[in-house]
Amino acid sequence: MRIEGIPASPGYAEGPLVDLDRPPAAYEAKASAAEEKAALKAAIGKAVSRLTTLIEAADGDAAGILEFHIAMLEDDALSGPAIASIGSGEPADTAWRQALDAEIAGYEASDQDYFRARAADLRDIRDQVLRALSEDWEAVAPRGAILYGADIAPTRFLETDWSGGGGIALKAGSTASHVAMLARSRGVPMVVGLGALADKSTGNALLDAEHGGIVLSPSPAELEAFRLSSSSFAARQGQAQTFLGQPAVTKAGTRVRVQVNIAYPSDVDGIDIETCDGVGLMRTEFLFGKSLPDEETQYHAYRKVLEWAGDKPVTIRTVDAGGDKPVPGFTVEETNPFLGLRGIRLSLARRDIFRVQIRALLRAAVHGNLKVMFPMIATTEEYSQAAALFAEEQTALAARGVAHKLPPLGIMVEVPSVAIAPEAFANVAFFSIGSNDLTQYVMAAARDNAAVVSLNSVRHPAVLRLITAVAVFGQQHGIPVSLCGDAGGDPAVIPALLEAGLRDLSVAPAQLAMAKAAIADVSV
Amino acid sequence: MRIEGIPASPGYAEGPLVDLDRPPAAYEAKASAAEEKAALKAAIGKAVSRLTTLIEAADGDAAGILEFHIAMLEDDALSGPAIASIGSGEPADTAWRQALDAEIAGYEASDQDYFRARAADLRDIRDQVLRALSEDWEAVAPRGAILYGADIAPTRFLETDWSGGGGIALKAGSTASHVAMLARSRGVPMVVGLGALADKSTGNALLDAEHGGIVLSPSPAELEAFRLSSSSFAARQGQAQTFLGQPAVTKAGTRVRVQVNIAYPSDVDGIDIETCDGVGLMRTEFLFGKSLPDEETQYHAYRKVLEWAGDKPVTIRTVDAGGDKPVPGFTVEETNPFLGLRGIRLSLARRDIFRVQIRALLRAAVHGNLKVMFPMIATTEEYSQAAALFAEEQTALAARGVAHKLPPLGIMVEVPSVAIAPEAFANVAFFSIGSNDLTQYVMAAARDNAAVVSLNSVRHPAVLRLITAVAVFGQQHGIPVSLCGDAGGDPAVIPALLEAGLRDLSVAPAQLAMAKAAIADVSV
Repeated sequence: MRIEGIPASPGYAEGPLVDLDRPPAAYEAKASAAEEKAALKAAIGKAVSRLTTLIEAADGDAAGILEFHIAMLEDDALSGPAIASIGSGEPADTAWRQALDAEIAGYEASDQDYFRARAADLRDIRDQVLRALSEDWEAVAPRGAILYGADIAPTRFLETDWSGGGGIALKAGSTASHVAMLARSRGVPMVVGLGALADKSTGNALLDAEHGGIVLSPSPAELEAFRLSSSSFAARQGQAQTFLGQPAVTKAGTRVRVQVNIAYPSDVDGIDIETCDGVGLMRTEFLFGKSLPDEETQYHAYRKVLEWAGDKPVTIRTVDAGGDKPVPGFTVEETNPFLGLRGIRLSLARRDIFRVQIRALLRAAVHGNLKVMFPMIATTEEYSQAAALFAEEQTALAARGVAHKLPPLGIMVEVPSVAIAPEAFANVAFFSIGSNDLTQYVMAAARDNAAVVSLNSVRHPAVLRLITAVAVFGQQHGIPVSLCGDAGGDPAVIPALLEAGLRDLSVAPAQLAMAKAAIADVSV
Repeated sequence: MRIEGIPASPGYAEGPLVDLDRPPAAYEAKASAAEEKAALKAAIGKAVSRLTTLIEAADGDAAGILEFHIAMLEDDALSGPAIASIGSGEPADTAWRQALDAEIAGYEASDQDYFRARAADLRDIRDQVLRALSEDWEAVAPRGAILYGADIAPTRFLETDWSGGGGIALKAGSTASHVAMLARSRGVPMVVGLGALADKSTGNALLDAEHGGIVLSPSPAELEAFRLSSSSFAARQGQAQTFLGQPAVTKAGTRVRVQVNIAYPSDVDGIDIETCDGVGLMRTEFLFGKSLPDEETQYHAYRKVLEWAGDKPVTIRTVDAGGDKPVPGFTVEETNPFLGLRGIRLSLARRDIFRVQIRALLRAAVHGNLKVMFPMIATTEEYSQAAALFAEEQTALAARGVAHKLPPLGIMVEVPSVAIAPEAFANVAFFSIGSNDLTQYVMAAARDNAAVVSLNSVRHPAVLRLITAVAVFGQQHGIPVSLCGDAGGDPAVIPALLEAGLRDLSVAPAQLAMAKAAIADVSV
């Protein structure tokens, strides 16, 4: 019997189902409130040191997520209410569970996908401390198992040995969760939104995370079909790997630049710079955690990536908060956040915060081949104002004798107005087409709304027409044009993008090989 | 001293401030719960009969609003909780106030402007019943007064005699409220969002609802400037009236069709059909109240307007629910409703409901010159599916021998994809450009978000380029093109629209005269 879900990380897995939803063992209450408090503090300490051990083995974004968990565990705002309710007579486990459940409920009630996805992190933290309290650490799943539950904790993902296969099948879950991101970058098959599965399945289950589904108690015919699909997928991946070390070239011999998109400075730790043509998009939203970032933190983050890339270009996008990336204390609540105060609009509205980022970028620019771009530009006034702020901060740094350099300033092409009337932007240094946002505005279909997913197609003639128009305009005016949306890494879309005239794509690191392989198959 | 606000209905008023926020007088408790219940029921009855009296004098949308109030008052869902709490010992006034305040809080907490605006209707109902309980009806304001308060009840607006001038100045309020709609159609000056005004003003205040502001305790210089602006506005309006009875013609002698947009069937009661070229947009969201509408109700509503218009065309838009027009039980909660399941998307997803509307339209078509258009079309598949449903229902009506006619089927051009690639739609009967939505998608700036209002401009070159492209495509292929957004009635935008090639505008009835006057001033 096959149950359909939503693919969150492509691939295939065949193995026994392992239940993730087993609750932690019961906790033995202590004799006094003081002992309960000590037990809770010790348990939090144990959870922190376990996370610290995991960090040593983790790289890139995984380490970032674990650091985020540690920061939350060490935050008194989370433990304070639990300590207080121990004071009024609750045992440590009840106190901690209630305090965390209250926080989790707040996140789950949010109408922002981003915050709802963070609820999984909080459940993870809750359960780690509860297990530490009862000394009931989770049993290791057999290698190759398919982990199955309502949701999966990031730490559980990181503890698991995926070298022998296996996968993740979730009743609920989100393709935007931390684990989904990790699974994609590690190549672990994952399907979400399966609903409750019948309990009576025996033997191995078949997880098809290429199309999104799971087969329980498979028939011989189902097993045979599954193995065919699975080996075809593996063959395609294997073939792609042979392209990874080579520059991307089409069948007709046209060279195509392929850069990478990164979200955290530590992402570059897992990438061989020789396999790509630079960083086409470095997001800077990671800087915005619980508080707004200072200039030094930003400077070091940018410098790390620039030094890693050497001569190759690194295109850093100024902060694109808002939309589906709310930042407490910075972004505002809106009825339609995708059409609201986000990207450059927010930076220009909060210049105090924007100037800090500008100074960090100007200072980092001396350490490599930096390019800077502005997200969500809709009008030339916005570009001029942002560029003027760079000039002002440059003058101020020069007056103070601080080493700096003005990088080329470009824009994201994602608001339709820019693609429809690009001639007003003949003075910018480069264009980077943000195909995700451009598509959702051209089709008026939110990219995170399943009810309109069929309309949200970058291959619609209107979207491709705008992409072509921008590529042609760039060629005519000597303005470099790249594309950094998900479309750039999608083998099914790459032919249309090259036919539209693009010769510069920026893709997720995990998509590099498949993208290069797809390019080699195009005849332009 | 001048305080700035947001204009909700243009015009000028000079007069004393009258406080709207006086609470109703105290209620005298009765001896038993039975008497309290009887008192509450009697008060609700009094409020209903007062509304019924008001309806007799009201026309068009005003009557619609009052009917909505009566329906709410007569709904047990509203009075039930109050009756129950009288049963547990509360006096009638407390019981009613608490029950209504709970409902109001729910509406106010909504992140949908539409629902928040409905909170004013509920406060109105609450206070009417409270005044009926204490027999404390509101004092009539002097003619020419400026009514000032947190918000204004629709019934208060309708009871007021506006023939001697006067206006409305609100601390909070919304340009989307029922009263704002009424004020625009009656030409009553109204400003919202003024915040709390200093109490110590004496003498007349000056309300400038053309630009949005109020002057308290004006200086002689302020008074003189105000009277100049006010008479200039009156002169422009007076001049415009002379154009009302004439067909619209530019300075160069080009004939421009000017139709009207209506939201309720009763809107036509206040319009002389001789002053317009038909109905360019009849909305059908009014049909969706507390329950979904049956075929007969719809048929009679459409027929009324068709018979009023005679030979002139009436373009009815199939229901455009969703976006900023949620319908309980029909639309869904979304993070970005403007980019979600709305308009034709929702109708195609709920075909049971759509087919009822289609049958009503097919039957009504025999009574006049009907055209039907679909909102939010993004792809040709959507148009084909909608047209196929018309064909199916036509066949079914024919089989049953029911009188009907297939009207010409056109589309709204408001999703950018259609304007960017119109060639796919060469088979539709007509285009109607929805400039409000088209602009918000092209600029990626929600039309109801004050933080991005400066970006939301129909005069941006990219928006005008798309409008021109659609007009040109229509001319080349013999497809009529009109425009039915707010831009069509804005004298500042009309020249650009005619230069873009449009010769058919559809405007709010209150804008007819000004639009014709503005057309007469254009040289194309």
